[in-house]
Amino acid sequence: MRNETHRLNIVRVSGTTTTRQSDVVVKESPVTIFLNDVDLVSLLCSPKDLEYLAAGFLFGEGFIKNRVEIKRIFADKKDGVVWVETVGQKKVRENILAKRFITTGCGRGFSFVDSAEYSKGLKADRDFRIPAGTVASLMKEFQNKSQIYRETGGVHSAGLANSSRIVIFNEDIGRHNAIDKVLGERLLKGTMNDNLVMITSGRVSSDILIKAARGRIPIIISRSAPTDLAVRLARELGITLVGFARGSRMNVYSNEWRITIKPHRKQRNQRMGES
Amino acid sequence: MRNETHRLNIVRVSGTTTTRQSDVVVKESPVTIFLNDVDLVSLLCSPKDLEYLAAGFLFGEGFIKNRVEIKRIFADKKDGVVWVETVGQKKVRENILAKRFITTGCGRGFSFVDSAEYSKGLKADRDFRIPAGTVASLMKEFQNKSQIYRETGGVHSAGLANSSRIVIFNEDIGRHNAIDKVLGERLLKGTMNDNLVMITSGRVSSDILIKAARGRIPIIISRSAPTDLAVRLARELGITLVGFARGSRMNVYSNEWRITIKPHRKQRNQRMGES
Repeated sequence: MRNETHRLNIVRVSGTTTTRQSDVVVKESPVTIFLNDVDLVSLLCSPKDLEYLAAGFLFGEGFIKNRVEIKRIFADKKDGVVWVETVGQKKVRENILAKRFITTGCGRGFSFVDSAEYSKGLKADRDFRIPAGTVASLMKEFQNKSQIYRETGGVHSAGLANSSRIVIFNEDIGRHNAIDKVLGERLLKGTMNDNLVMITSGRVSSDILIKAARGRIPIIISRSAPTDLAVRLARELGITLVGFARGSRMNVYSNEWRITIKPHRKQRNQRMGES
Repeated sequence: MRNETHRLNIVRVSGTTTTRQSDVVVKESPVTIFLNDVDLVSLLCSPKDLEYLAAGFLFGEGFIKNRVEIKRIFADKKDGVVWVETVGQKKVRENILAKRFITTGCGRGFSFVDSAEYSKGLKADRDFRIPAGTVASLMKEFQNKSQIYRETGGVHSAGLANSSRIVIFNEDIGRHNAIDKVLGERLLKGTMNDNLVMITSGRVSSDILIKAARGRIPIIISRSAPTDLAVRLARELGITLVGFARGSRMNVYSNEWRITIKPHRKQRNQRMGES
């Protein structure tokens, strides 16, 4: 954890008492992604897993579609730079970039999406479902993993899970970066199927939904709130969106057929006894 | 509140019980800012106070420095567009824009700032200080004002306060937008001095710090965590940064001389008795 946090001296106030003491805050670093030698974007992020961040960013923003397109990826952590080279040296026209970055990414921009395009992309099995009890246990595992948060209170977490456990997990000062990192790790490792659950500590706005759709994620679980636009997109794109997942409680905003409810064994026995 | 929230049908799960019910989620809308007829940026935001959002965004990102530069500002809420016309029809070169938006704004980008420039801008009286008790009471007033949050859990709040009460307050789905809205309202109303406290519900990253610096805000209070880069900038720029302000407790990360501790009246009496 030491690499992602920084220790400094602060003044702690409690009522009329002040104490000078050492405290830990989360690190924030600017990182620039170069795509085929073009300075693409600078992100403020937690300086860890920069290859995953870059790969996930390029994937989530639609620059690359799969692992095969990446010829080389190299992160220079010291200088805060990630170099990505794609097959065929895909050229990035600067005007397109300007437009792209203004209209997408980072919770500030938006371009209306062709929902048909994303629906086609969603390849999860029609019968991929998970019990509500699994949502609760995945969320518990997710909370337990959040180490930097417990230490500093300053980061968001994101994870990818199969129907029984979390298989990829990361943390970042940015809600979007954390999701880019898990999608990037999945892309670079290139081993997983499409029956995955995305878990996020953050609010689900439309741009988060679009990242999940690009990643062909059928189920999104958040411990926070969604926006109306995220719910609308989730309904259009066939994604199951679960919010306020806390303990055994949760709100299911769309495609609730993927969340199954198992009656308690006791209830089942009772029913069997009744019949 | 009705305009900023949307009512929809959801499935609520609690253990093995599911109920279909109506719930309220926060609205999210794309809004495009045109600066002198150039399509500058599209933001995802809460569709309210769009003039304040646009003015604050332009100010916080350094496009305009004061109210006088704005000749006309007009928001078309229905189409999600804000038109801003500046004196002298300042031209925005597209390449500059591309670079700007990639490197600043929205918690994703960063351009290293000339800290000397900001220090010069910070015009707060050297003797502007507030008691720790006032930090606590401002935070309490701040929490009480957060109406949409209480209803939906989906927004961030921001406020500007003088040394006794909150004078400007707003909410938005975006941490940065909420701050843009309060800085924008202050700019357009153009009535306030520089002895102001900025309050935010969100984490304080370097870009939030820079917005405050551009707004010549001497004190920032957050109920959440700061990053190390935000603390470093606050120290360099002479800004007092208070985090984890909850009840009578808080952490002061920089320039703690602006937060004064008043001994309890009782203690004071005791001391007087002792002397």
